[in-house]
Amino acid sequence: MTQVKAYAAQQADQPLALFDLDRRTPGESDVEIEILFCGVCHSDIHTARNEWGGTKYPVVPGHEIVGKVSAIGTGVTKYKVGDTVGVGCFVDSCGHCNNCEKDLEQYCENGNSQTYNSLLQDKKTITYGGYSTHIVVTEKFVLSVSDKLPLEAVAPLLCAGITTYSPLKHWNVKEGDKVAVVGLGGLGHMAVKIAAAMGAEVTMLSRSPEKEKDADALGAHHFELTTVAENMKKMSGRFDIIIDTVSAQHDYNEYLKLLKTDGTMVLLGVPPQMEQIHAGSLIFGRKSLVGSLVGGIKETQEMLDFCAEHNIVSDVEVISIDKVNEAYERTIAGDVHYRFVIDMASLKN
Amino acid sequence: MTQVKAYAAQQADQPLALFDLDRRTPGESDVEIEILFCGVCHSDIHTARNEWGGTKYPVVPGHEIVGKVSAIGTGVTKYKVGDTVGVGCFVDSCGHCNNCEKDLEQYCENGNSQTYNSLLQDKKTITYGGYSTHIVVTEKFVLSVSDKLPLEAVAPLLCAGITTYSPLKHWNVKEGDKVAVVGLGGLGHMAVKIAAAMGAEVTMLSRSPEKEKDADALGAHHFELTTVAENMKKMSGRFDIIIDTVSAQHDYNEYLKLLKTDGTMVLLGVPPQMEQIHAGSLIFGRKSLVGSLVGGIKETQEMLDFCAEHNIVSDVEVISIDKVNEAYERTIAGDVHYRFVIDMASLKN
Repeated sequence: MTQVKAYAAQQADQPLALFDLDRRTPGESDVEIEILFCGVCHSDIHTARNEWGGTKYPVVPGHEIVGKVSAIGTGVTKYKVGDTVGVGCFVDSCGHCNNCEKDLEQYCENGNSQTYNSLLQDKKTITYGGYSTHIVVTEKFVLSVSDKLPLEAVAPLLCAGITTYSPLKHWNVKEGDKVAVVGLGGLGHMAVKIAAAMGAEVTMLSRSPEKEKDADALGAHHFELTTVAENMKKMSGRFDIIIDTVSAQHDYNEYLKLLKTDGTMVLLGVPPQMEQIHAGSLIFGRKSLVGSLVGGIKETQEMLDFCAEHNIVSDVEVISIDKVNEAYERTIAGDVHYRFVIDMASLKN
Repeated sequence: MTQVKAYAAQQADQPLALFDLDRRTPGESDVEIEILFCGVCHSDIHTARNEWGGTKYPVVPGHEIVGKVSAIGTGVTKYKVGDTVGVGCFVDSCGHCNNCEKDLEQYCENGNSQTYNSLLQDKKTITYGGYSTHIVVTEKFVLSVSDKLPLEAVAPLLCAGITTYSPLKHWNVKEGDKVAVVGLGGLGHMAVKIAAAMGAEVTMLSRSPEKEKDADALGAHHFELTTVAENMKKMSGRFDIIIDTVSAQHDYNEYLKLLKTDGTMVLLGVPPQMEQIHAGSLIFGRKSLVGSLVGGIKETQEMLDFCAEHNIVSDVEVISIDKVNEAYERTIAGDVHYRFVIDMASLKN
């Protein structure tokens, strides 16, 4: 075991603070990573504050990790010391269920090991995330990261990037498709960039007129206010796919109207309560309401390579780790464009 | 014009009664059909009683029509007098929109002409359905019916048959797939037969233990009571597709749990009020909640041919037309196995 510096929440109502964390000595197939940057995802906040229940304290959040390999186990073949690598939302899975065999570790039938507040596959060892100087992860769950892009801006791709890339890929978005993105935050801004890079005609749907300039800068081809009834009517039957990133209450039926026949609306956000759905919103036009959860390891690597090829990164605001509690408040208030990323050098010094 | 006998509702609260109806003289591409049998669909009742609003009285219901060609226009090439034919839920569409061009006339963007209580493509002439001795329909919307099967039992295929065949086909049900059917009525009993003929392993899900014997007789491989919590738990993650035929209130989330990763739940029934959906029910397992509406003309012909090949017909109770009001009451009470079909000879005499 090696003791490393980390930031942890000790209780739901306590700010995150310095914490000494034990990381395992790399085993045969392990990669030890010196973390350079870690993104701040809204899930980190929900978990630190036990808003989803089940948080085991102390908790070290962080699952948008980019760093350099600092040590490897004797059996590691894919990486060597000094390589630039990433770690996303999970660090292991059973490896043999129907879903793991299909490279869908995110839906592992035996329960995958999430990067923090979860258990390793021994079902005993608690996992601790990326708000720390180092992490040790089994080779198969380590991603290769190109040095071509600014690494602080690559970090959020490991969660926000794959969460939006995966459904766009799975539901086969292609050149000329009409894609709408609902909600312009961490997920929404990645959805706009990735869909546009796939050749789609992207429309940003938003309740806030002030977001038009931002949507434009991100590469959206159109911007429409959803608060104007006339706009919604005009867009009826327009889109092949809607990427819905909103986790606040909203009426799915109003958005389903905007789909073409055989169109698909993908839910990425989880509103606090259930939403109402009218069967007719799906039946008339053979429409699909679907959900998607991050992406598997193979697809995450594909996404990182796609983003490197298309020069896609997240728009970030880099902070030192002592600002993380403040960043939580600003994230909740929507006051970030579009992701906070912690510079882990600030934890070392 | 030719005056023919029909049965019509004159008002929402009036029983159906004899009505003299004018049918057009067959035009160049028209087929005149002497109707032999017409099924009683729940939609007939909703429309006759104006339960969906918008009923134009007098209304002649009926869109599960089987008969013999009695006259043809000069330009008709597909049919000749004496051929056995069918007519389903619509009798025309615009023919040139995106959906019509893809053989999806059921989703015609300019509004198709439904078989009754609708307008022809002139947007003026009201349509009257199959509770009559004859109907005149443009050739393209007339289906060819095999004489191999009992015609009274073929009639319901034109609505209940295609409504269940279409989603099973569209979502690619194949040999060995695990299909669940929710609700054992007119639609449900066809879904069981067709899915079984496609080679699927079919499970009937029902609230009524007395339906087990019926499900077995229809070809379901398994029967499970949804009222027993243990059963529902045991079936978690089991099915590739769920065909949900229920139009009463029920909790979609409970059924979504029964789907495998990437599974699809198809809504065919429209509950009177909206149902609640939790985004997590779709996100965890990348599941799809979809809807489907009857099927296009090309697919309806494919379904009729499939049913002829596999000896699939509807289970019917044949009635004379003077029993139609009583049949409505029994349909509402669920007291029919599984479709009433009117023997139109009873209207002629």
